[in-house]
Amino acid sequence: MAKQPDPARRSQRSRQAILTAARELVSEVGYAKLTIEAIAARAGVGKQTIYRWWPSKGAVILDAFLALSESGPEQDITLPDTGDLEADLKAVMRATVAEFADPAFEKPIRALNTEITNDPTLAALYLEKLAGPVDEAKKARLRSAQRAGQLAADADLDLALELLYAPLYQRWLLRSGPLTAQYADALVDAFLKAMRPTGPS
Amino acid sequence: MAKQPDPARRSQRSRQAILTAARELVSEVGYAKLTIEAIAARAGVGKQTIYRWWPSKGAVILDAFLALSESGPEQDITLPDTGDLEADLKAVMRATVAEFADPAFEKPIRALNTEITNDPTLAALYLEKLAGPVDEAKKARLRSAQRAGQLAADADLDLALELLYAPLYQRWLLRSGPLTAQYADALVDAFLKAMRPTGPS
Repeated sequence: MAKQPDPARRSQRSRQAILTAARELVSEVGYAKLTIEAIAARAGVGKQTIYRWWPSKGAVILDAFLALSESGPEQDITLPDTGDLEADLKAVMRATVAEFADPAFEKPIRALNTEITNDPTLAALYLEKLAGPVDEAKKARLRSAQRAGQLAADADLDLALELLYAPLYQRWLLRSGPLTAQYADALVDAFLKAMRPTGPS
Repeated sequence: MAKQPDPARRSQRSRQAILTAARELVSEVGYAKLTIEAIAARAGVGKQTIYRWWPSKGAVILDAFLALSESGPEQDITLPDTGDLEADLKAVMRATVAEFADPAFEKPIRALNTEITNDPTLAALYLEKLAGPVDEAKKARLRSAQRAGQLAADADLDLALELLYAPLYQRWLLRSGPLTAQYADALVDAFLKAMRPTGPS
């Protein structure tokens, strides 16, 4: 029996080629100069193929970054939980600070950030598809700490995550201070003080 | 005696016209579409007049915003100091949250922010000329609280300001949550808990 062409597989290959091209090009030329035409040319597909799947340049780029973290199923996003909240958070924050300080991530992530902050539709997509699931994983770790009596039971976990991550995000974005392991530790220390249970101990 | 033309005054008038035009235009068309030509046309000056004083579009916009807060001398930037740290900080943070939530500020400030985060030179200029002096004023208030024993004497004041302001900045930038007076208060409460003196009370 002759082999049938497999449209689903071909489609999947095109999709991967587009995402890879988008990721490469945003690093090479920056977001502002990146065009759908250039992505199509490098991926070896027509422009219309891209527009069939994505409404905008920003949406392609966002998916290109999402694809990087889609190596495993979504439930794989979990934070370490050894029972030692301080040690677990310091390990996570040191890794996060190192990632932000990595020059290889600098250009594409800054480009994506610019798009997200200037495009409310893309911001909503980002919150739903990327930040949301990651934040849920972080909150699961904080809830475990609440059950262990290490964090205030009534702590607002959205505010808690902002306290832990927003200073780092702002420092990276405005280039206003060093991104070091010491800084990661100091953030966790301040966070734990702000969020620890009140009342008689 | 006939009146002499006054080049310094004419220069000052041109400068003001350029800054006003820049501020108006960035609100009307957004940063990306704003050109030096358009600013020059609206201000009634030549392009070369603008380039004589500013190296880039971003530098003009930054000065346009700086001019807004230059109504008084620089030492006028002070935070309220009634002795009640919690009340003072909540007043300041409620006002700051309201400013960020104001649609009139939205477009130009977001445009300026995009430039700052993508242009390291402009970021340095922004830190030196705008954020720096304002941060110093905020730190003066925190030092007063340290002397009064209301904040830990060894608190890192750069980290302290980030804890207080970065969550709001991130929430505004990513449009990830409501900007309300309740949020301002919750930020101050968390900040005070994180920064209060340790040891026997």
